Amino acid sequence: MSRWQPNARERLESAALELFIEHGFAATTVPQITAHAGLTTRTFFRHFVDKREVLFAADDDFPALVSHIVSQAPPSLSPVAVFEAGIDALAAEMFEGRLEFLRARHMVVRSDEGLAERELSKRAAMADAITRAYLDRGVDQVTAALTAQFTMAVVGVSVGRWIGENGATPLPHIMRETLQLLRAIAAD
Amino acid sequence: MSRWQPNARERLESAALELFIEHGFAATTVPQITAHAGLTTRTFFRHFVDKREVLFAADDDFPALVSHIVSQAPPSLSPVAVFEAGIDALAAEMFEGRLEFLRARHMVVRSDEGLAERELSKRAAMADAITRAYLDRGVDQVTAALTAQFTMAVVGVSVGRWIGENGATPLPHIMRETLQLLRAIAAD
Repeated sequence: MSRWQPNARERLESAALELFIEHGFAATTVPQITAHAGLTTRTFFRHFVDKREVLFAADDDFPALVSHIVSQAPPSLSPVAVFEAGIDALAAEMFEGRLEFLRARHMVVRSDEGLAERELSKRAAMADAITRAYLDRGVDQVTAALTAQFTMAVVGVSVGRWIGENGATPLPHIMRETLQLLRAIAAD
Repeated sequence: MSRWQPNARERLESAALELFIEHGFAATTVPQITAHAGLTTRTFFRHFVDKREVLFAADDDFPALVSHIVSQAPPSLSPVAVFEAGIDALAAEMFEGRLEFLRARHMVVRSDEGLAERELSKRAAMADAITRAYLDRGVDQVTAALTAQFTMAVVGVSVGRWIGENGATPLPHIMRETLQLLRAIAAD
């Protein structure tokens, strides 16, 4: 086996998700994952701290992405308009092309209470990252926190619907529709 | 010691919070809590499953309260108007008169990662309870889920501000103000 493994990370993710779904998260070991992917445990630990992080490692890119989107938005845009302007970038960087992974992850996370708690922690960290990005833009604390909750609601509901529909409608379209619905709910 | 202990639950809560803050959550034992409260461990376990539940047991009343508020609201009210009409009842039943407990709990929960994850799980369960209450009212799934996230954002930010201000402004007033702010953010 050569030292350089193309797409090692993606192969480990796919192998892990297959085994998690087939045998359960708790019963799957790192050596089983690496054997299934045709890679070494050493390669695994170059990419992930432990088997749980296979499910969540990609979320670590979220704060930098949000900071970039929010800081690049024209100063004239309101907080929610900043989010609206960033929908295409957010969908492309975090979700599109990863439907199978996200759908499998959703199934695995639902099956294990510890993973579900971990996901809630990751979401709370995402909301904190959004809040910080708006604070850096000069928005006050309460508005920043409310905008973070508002946008997380739109993203969470939209991604859930997108996965549930198996990608039938483009995610940016669902996000814009959900944003308009939440605006209508707020105004009613 | 007589078998009947008036206010046993509240005395156990106060004793536990004092010890959690003084010695840390992990280092505090149930016998220490009961000794501090002048009660038996048997009494403790009549009220709480374990020491962690001293912090969260009151949240268990939330689903029934939300179901009551939402089902009693006039049919003509929109989802957010239902929440608005229930602000006084929600504040009175869940928060008012418990500022010291909530402030102490906030400090303890922040100090322990496991407790913080537990609180996120409780909040997710609250959002689910709100979603179910709106579904029972005949609201569609997406609107119910978005309304739940919207109202949880208002309640979470409001209670945080109320605790931070040490109750200087009445909680229902803060909730109405925060609701108006989130409506303005959504419309902007």
